[in-house]
Amino acid sequence: MTPSQKSLAKGSPAPGPVPKGSIRLYSMRFCPFAERTRLVLSAKGIKHETINVNLKEKPDWFLEKNPLGLVPVLETPEGQIIYESPITCDYLDEVYAGKKLLPSDPLEKAQQRMLLEHYSKVVPFFYKIPVAKRNGEDVTALEGELREKLSKFNEILVKKKTKFFGGDSITMIDYMMWPWFERMETLQLKHCLDQTPDLAKWMERMLEDPAVEETMFSPEVHAVFYKSYVAGTPDYDYGL
Amino acid sequence: MTPSQKSLAKGSPAPGPVPKGSIRLYSMRFCPFAERTRLVLSAKGIKHETINVNLKEKPDWFLEKNPLGLVPVLETPEGQIIYESPITCDYLDEVYAGKKLLPSDPLEKAQQRMLLEHYSKVVPFFYKIPVAKRNGEDVTALEGELREKLSKFNEILVKKKTKFFGGDSITMIDYMMWPWFERMETLQLKHCLDQTPDLAKWMERMLEDPAVEETMFSPEVHAVFYKSYVAGTPDYDYGL
Repeated sequence: MTPSQKSLAKGSPAPGPVPKGSIRLYSMRFCPFAERTRLVLSAKGIKHETINVNLKEKPDWFLEKNPLGLVPVLETPEGQIIYESPITCDYLDEVYAGKKLLPSDPLEKAQQRMLLEHYSKVVPFFYKIPVAKRNGEDVTALEGELREKLSKFNEILVKKKTKFFGGDSITMIDYMMWPWFERMETLQLKHCLDQTPDLAKWMERMLEDPAVEETMFSPEVHAVFYKSYVAGTPDYDYGL
Repeated sequence: MTPSQKSLAKGSPAPGPVPKGSIRLYSMRFCPFAERTRLVLSAKGIKHETINVNLKEKPDWFLEKNPLGLVPVLETPEGQIIYESPITCDYLDEVYAGKKLLPSDPLEKAQQRMLLEHYSKVVPFFYKIPVAKRNGEDVTALEGELREKLSKFNEILVKKKTKFFGGDSITMIDYMMWPWFERMETLQLKHCLDQTPDLAKWMERMLEDPAVEETMFSPEVHAVFYKSYVAGTPDYDYGL
């Protein structure tokens, strides 16, 4: 794995072509969506390089690669571009050998995609609740909604009687969900898990996964970045 | 293909299991999302039955199958449930023999999914503009936005120099996009295509496709349903 580089901002020279036999990830070190792709790259042991992008002062060359201006973005040696986190992850799983993360059974694959669709309705709460708190609003109702949504995910684990969401080993859906759980302590949302013991156990198991270990930041590091982000001066290179 | 049945509403008896060797679609005849699945069922010649659902007075048994309460929903003879239109379509393409609609190349597949992601940002305009018009608002700006988005799709066809979005024959992405184009005349939005000649030609080609022919309704029929829908009394069974 290439060590992370300091983020490139507006005015930086465009990076050259991607070396043959490698793939390039445009990322932001603390972005949970980009972390999905970093998890898959790590879990499959894919040789890659990482270019971190300053998302506040985006380079023009980055906007040319992805007009949406978001990370993650993959670039191949042929200059092909792939973005949107689930699309990048599925692409990597299909193209590269190694541990298969997506189920080969079409029904199981459909079930993981439906679960991801449900999860996409949980993600906004990880943003809405902290914002409401900062505005001094009462977050009881929002936290109640989050708890209810999380309880449905807990129920799935209880019903399936498996360690992870796709079975007894980690599969794609676990990596797709993980990044926001990693940030729950920093976002002061961990108490929302106190009635979902199976989900809490899933989190503990996730923390033991080598790809999660390699990819994650500690709550302390997340806290420093998060504070700078809230202040409007995100410290993309914190810790480098 | 089973002929369409009148829609089932709240209080209707739950349908029995799906016969072996078939698959069941829960649909609403005029729903553009369900039409995506109907197009794939037709294009691949998949033996299926259709149960139309009254989306205003949803049966309890339907909400048990899909808690989101939306069509399309697929049900297998084993009672497995699949929902969300792109997930149902990909599932059908993977499970059933016949014409393959998804590219087998992972990069092409990723490109179709990215295009679908962009298209999902066009779809809301087919709702927002007619609503704004009915409210007597000036829609010049909204129509301008729609035109701009459509011009990007036109550009793709120009650059690719192909008849359809995935090449010179119809593939999944064309069927995913089609249902809203079918409704443009009814929604009085067809003038938004007057600067996108390649997209207009694509539409003409789509109209010649047997699956589109089998699945679509005429602008006149759409107009009757749409009028009833706007009036708050959707005539789900119009024409049966």
